Amino acid sequence: MVEPLIRSSEAVEYESVAAADGLRKGVLIDEGDGAPNFAIRRFVLEPGAEVPKHTNDVEHEQYVLEGAYTVGIDDEEYTVSAGDALLVPAGTVHWYRNEGDQPGAFLCAVPNGDDTIELTE
Amino acid sequence: MVEPLIRSSEAVEYESVAAADGLRKGVLIDEGDGAPNFAIRRFVLEPGAEVPKHTNDVEHEQYVLEGAYTVGIDDEEYTVSAGDALLVPAGTVHWYRNEGDQPGAFLCAVPNGDDTIELTE
Repeated sequence: MVEPLIRSSEAVEYESVAAADGLRKGVLIDEGDGAPNFAIRRFVLEPGAEVPKHTNDVEHEQYVLEGAYTVGIDDEEYTVSAGDALLVPAGTVHWYRNEGDQPGAFLCAVPNGDDTIELTE
Repeated sequence: MVEPLIRSSEAVEYESVAAADGLRKGVLIDEGDGAPNFAIRRFVLEPGAEVPKHTNDVEHEQYVLEGAYTVGIDDEEYTVSAGDALLVPAGTVHWYRNEGDQPGAFLCAVPNGDDTIELTE
């Protein structure tokens, strides 16, 4: 039996992400809360943040919450800003860079289960 | 082979939702885009919007994007505001009401597959 949950923004704990300078991650809802299929997390990309080229075993569905920053997928770079949505398929090389002077933030949903992050540079 | 996708906020199409006055729904990413496991949608709750008590066959994981509004789950009502996250388990009675003078907006993720919406009042 899964219980309903309301988690206020103040109750979300953020941690640094290894190998990604200036990236912070907060879990909003995941398996630990009883979520049966997928998790939603909020990431903050500080000005100057760089997340190197990598792949994941699982897809990402993302929504840009704040700011504007660079996302690379395969061989292309894009500038995304608040309101844009992204699908990064499993196994696809991707990276992030915030060259602005304002933080960027995005929501990232992933399926439950194990994920391996592989750096590709 | 799933292709990467970036959907700008301007490219999202919104439609009214039957039986829910003042609620609009825009699909950000779903099965039609090749998303293998779940969809993300953005909902706008206009001032005065009322979404009646109902259940869904699937869980919702939500993130409040804008404004403040009332969410009812089971027998309780809560005021949520931007930054809050919610887990509404499958089969749980829930409803929404925006009594403010500003629109509310939230992201709602659901697993792929059929969903039946059942009104409970």
